[in-house]
Amino acid sequence: MTTPSSLESLIEALRCLPGVGPKSAQRMAYHLMQHDRPGARRLAEALAAALGAVRHCRRCNTFTESEVCTRCLSPRRDASLLCVVETPVDMNMMEQTHAYSGLYYVLMGRISPLDGIGPSELHLERLLTRASDGLVKEVIIATNYTNEGEVTAHYLAETLRQRGVNVSRIARGVPVGGELEHIDAGTLAQALRERRPLAG
Amino acid sequence: MTTPSSLESLIEALRCLPGVGPKSAQRMAYHLMQHDRPGARRLAEALAAALGAVRHCRRCNTFTESEVCTRCLSPRRDASLLCVVETPVDMNMMEQTHAYSGLYYVLMGRISPLDGIGPSELHLERLLTRASDGLVKEVIIATNYTNEGEVTAHYLAETLRQRGVNVSRIARGVPVGGELEHIDAGTLAQALRERRPLAG
Repeated sequence: MTTPSSLESLIEALRCLPGVGPKSAQRMAYHLMQHDRPGARRLAEALAAALGAVRHCRRCNTFTESEVCTRCLSPRRDASLLCVVETPVDMNMMEQTHAYSGLYYVLMGRISPLDGIGPSELHLERLLTRASDGLVKEVIIATNYTNEGEVTAHYLAETLRQRGVNVSRIARGVPVGGELEHIDAGTLAQALRERRPLAG
Repeated sequence: MTTPSSLESLIEALRCLPGVGPKSAQRMAYHLMQHDRPGARRLAEALAAALGAVRHCRRCNTFTESEVCTRCLSPRRDASLLCVVETPVDMNMMEQTHAYSGLYYVLMGRISPLDGIGPSELHLERLLTRASDGLVKEVIIATNYTNEGEVTAHYLAETLRQRGVNVSRIARGVPVGGELEHIDAGTLAQALRERRPLAG
């Protein structure tokens, strides 16, 4: 190979992106150098700017450019409700429901023993302090219904209850618009077990 | 959405990468900010370095950091053979065969009317000047056997022949190790039409 060394370094550096292997890194580098140098310039600048500006909200732990994010500062949010999610994307999904007006805590991950991520790697003590601030009346756990999300939920529920905090979990069941025919048996079994009485 | 603006800009900037849509750009940006800030730093630096250093070889048009690339300067290459390929990757593939010791011309693309890429967008006049330098005895066209590669090959062959240059095309047929059972009918039909007499 006689690839120039700065191009080799770029190909290598692109592999820090999740899901990018050697072949796509090469394709990306060649594309940028041949067809989109302005885009490459913008990307380099955006990376540097984000590295300088992005940090974690001291209250909810999401990405922000200030000490405390705007949502945590808003007087219109109900400070007695604290919803725990895995990622900022999940927080945005919750917001899009327009069904929640409380505050959030973003774990920025989940407990995953296989990846060596336990409670201490997630800095859960910050959440526990936050939940015991006297304002929070209920912690709603909205981690994913995956194995890891469930492990995280159980750990949090136990720890929070020991501190006398009310804990709930978002419901699990048949999705709205879902047809029984197309739903996996596990979900259906849970929906059956967790059935609710109908008003009537 | 309350994504910080520098993070929004980063997500937007990542979309200059081929094959990266809004969802993967978001995933990449969050991953970098949360888990790989050193990688993001390296990527920003590698982009800037490559933008500053990488240019096109004045002779063969491939990526290089010098005026003329090392391969074009090598006295061990046969200057009477000129192989035309679409991309630097294709050139590396040819080199890996160890079956070619001539020089190259890299088109950095292909004729593609649907994308608005014609002969002038490919700067083919540079190749034509090069092929008529008196040293080149044969131009071997090694563009892909795709529709666009074929259109490019036909255009080049015609233009070069008008200038009295000998032109050949790499062979098309059943791949080495290929089983007829698993080869598409078009390839097999071509392999039949382009059969060669066996020495015997």
